[in-house]
Amino acid sequence: MSASIFKQSNVITCRAMVAWGAGQELVMEEVEVSPPHPLEIRIKVVCTSLCRSDITAWESQAIFPRIFGHEAAGIVESVGEGVTEFVEGDHVLTVFTGECGTCRHCQSDKSNMCQVLGLERRGLMHSDQKTRFSIKGKPVFHYCAVSSFSEYTVVHSGCAVKVSSFVPLDKICLLSCGVAAGLGAAWNVADISPGSTVVIFGLGTVGLSVAQGAKLRGASRIIGIDTNPEKCEKAKAFGVTEFLNPNDCNEPIQQVIKRITDGGTDYSFECIGDTGMITTALQSCCDGWGLTITLGVPKVKPEVAAHYGLFLTGRTLRGSLFGGWKPKTDLPSLVDKYINKEIQIDDFITHNLPFEDINKAFSLMREGKCLRCVIHMPR
Amino acid sequence: MSASIFKQSNVITCRAMVAWGAGQELVMEEVEVSPPHPLEIRIKVVCTSLCRSDITAWESQAIFPRIFGHEAAGIVESVGEGVTEFVEGDHVLTVFTGECGTCRHCQSDKSNMCQVLGLERRGLMHSDQKTRFSIKGKPVFHYCAVSSFSEYTVVHSGCAVKVSSFVPLDKICLLSCGVAAGLGAAWNVADISPGSTVVIFGLGTVGLSVAQGAKLRGASRIIGIDTNPEKCEKAKAFGVTEFLNPNDCNEPIQQVIKRITDGGTDYSFECIGDTGMITTALQSCCDGWGLTITLGVPKVKPEVAAHYGLFLTGRTLRGSLFGGWKPKTDLPSLVDKYINKEIQIDDFITHNLPFEDINKAFSLMREGKCLRCVIHMPR
Repeated sequence: MSASIFKQSNVITCRAMVAWGAGQELVMEEVEVSPPHPLEIRIKVVCTSLCRSDITAWESQAIFPRIFGHEAAGIVESVGEGVTEFVEGDHVLTVFTGECGTCRHCQSDKSNMCQVLGLERRGLMHSDQKTRFSIKGKPVFHYCAVSSFSEYTVVHSGCAVKVSSFVPLDKICLLSCGVAAGLGAAWNVADISPGSTVVIFGLGTVGLSVAQGAKLRGASRIIGIDTNPEKCEKAKAFGVTEFLNPNDCNEPIQQVIKRITDGGTDYSFECIGDTGMITTALQSCCDGWGLTITLGVPKVKPEVAAHYGLFLTGRTLRGSLFGGWKPKTDLPSLVDKYINKEIQIDDFITHNLPFEDINKAFSLMREGKCLRCVIHMPR
Repeated sequence: MSASIFKQSNVITCRAMVAWGAGQELVMEEVEVSPPHPLEIRIKVVCTSLCRSDITAWESQAIFPRIFGHEAAGIVESVGEGVTEFVEGDHVLTVFTGECGTCRHCQSDKSNMCQVLGLERRGLMHSDQKTRFSIKGKPVFHYCAVSSFSEYTVVHSGCAVKVSSFVPLDKICLLSCGVAAGLGAAWNVADISPGSTVVIFGLGTVGLSVAQGAKLRGASRIIGIDTNPEKCEKAKAFGVTEFLNPNDCNEPIQQVIKRITDGGTDYSFECIGDTGMITTALQSCCDGWGLTITLGVPKVKPEVAAHYGLFLTGRTLRGSLFGGWKPKTDLPSLVDKYINKEIQIDDFITHNLPFEDINKAFSLMREGKCLRCVIHMPR
């Protein structure tokens, strides 16, 4: 382990897109970004993409003012006391769930639920439950302890992953959340077998990443479900073999799936964030070994409800957070797969927008008109 | 495969304990038992134990008159056309879910959900959806296509397992359902790892069989939960290391479990048949890899409900029917384990009763005063 290269840095004043209230357009503000605290790093954000869960939180949560954004890549600007893993100039991906490396879960090969740097929903930093952003001295809350809709941000060093400076940050920022979440759900959490059948509910970036993962595992049928007919063509490019729009069906979608697959698929994935659809996904997979994976963060109704008979007849329901990846341990191998052209990322990027147009990205995603919008910060 | 030894047999008139209505005491009646149809066998029941699901169905279902009983052992009296596996005089265990050997699920090593001879809830025989029992010509319904509360019964040959004539039927009849269900949930469905922690909700025969299975797998802590304080001593004999009575706790039981296990157990088992308790079981196991197995058949409220966050933080909910055992393929090995004293059965038998006292067994079970009552048929 190298020695920490720590020199006291100053408060940076920069621009950030701040959310002042639920569902209200973001506003470009001047914010103060404090120096990194011990074990933290301050990052100059280069690119950040917009993920559906940014929108869900912005629409439904009550913590404001806040800086959203968690799928991002950037360059280390300064490091806090005790940081030995990063130096100024390192290229990094941020992650919304960290890896401390020492807790019981980080030590186990069965979990990526770091007990120290896990998902932070209250808009604060893990170490002191305070913010690193302020506007004229008044705190501005974080999101997922990342907050990448800012020219500079501070994250815990356990919530960043070093990457080669040769890899394009405006592409691999998608591995910071959505693409990795889908691939990991297919590979780590479901562990899809060759020749098996798969149904995916919701064909956004996460759902299509599940499709890509299923295809690479040799699934024989990958049925994609979405109410947006525009998803059909794109879905096929990512491995979906059959597209079904529930609005075009005369019977409930789970019945269609059971009928065309002789009793249900081997795997079903809920990638919408709708607890009712988790039930539908359970009903769509087969007796005996049907495995339903839920990835979404529901916007309403947090209770999953399902008839006990679905379980008693041999089904399993399992959750997937960040695809089961341990970020520091596993993300570098995904970056390598991208470099080696073993996985697709570029085709998920439907829009590139300058920072000041971030509200346009919000509109595109709410209207279902994009997969990923990559936001480019000023150089 | 040997040739079928088929000779046309006659209707047998014998005694059966018949349920005439929900929750009404069984009545000893003379019933006619038809000869076995093709691929069926007629069995002289020797012993039958009372399982909680007999009571649940008797209390809550609407199919009457009916002959309950499904956990049983007997001797083949005659065989139907095409039966090659059994001959008159063979000792057999009955099973409530069969194994045809040829369907997609029987051919898969991942399922015991035979698509031909699966759980039959309507009280009829699989082949023709009719009954083999009648009283003065009027049909009497089956239960689970076994109906062992009768001196003679007819089952599909796929719903019986041949056993050695040296093994005591009054003991191994418990492998026909409860003991096998619990052991299999621990071994096949949960696949408990050595050193792991386990919590079991409901310490009846099924729950204590899970405890026995967990102990034999080397679990380090086996926490047993029951509101009946009398279960405590018995539970320890089967491997339970800590007994907790929710009525004696000042906080919700899941909080107690999380506190004493530093975040929850590795595995939790719901063996009561209460969908609310499935939620509690999910809350009692740990983030990251917590696995909840549901075995019970709920008496009321068939919907399982749980906050999606329980799944997203890495929990899995899986159902277990008959412990994942394929009856014909797997039960002989369990019988061998009993013969070799590798598993306990005898200590589950708290009462032995003659056939005519079957209502007493019902009372004992409803009052929580027995584990297994074995009913002995007249010789």
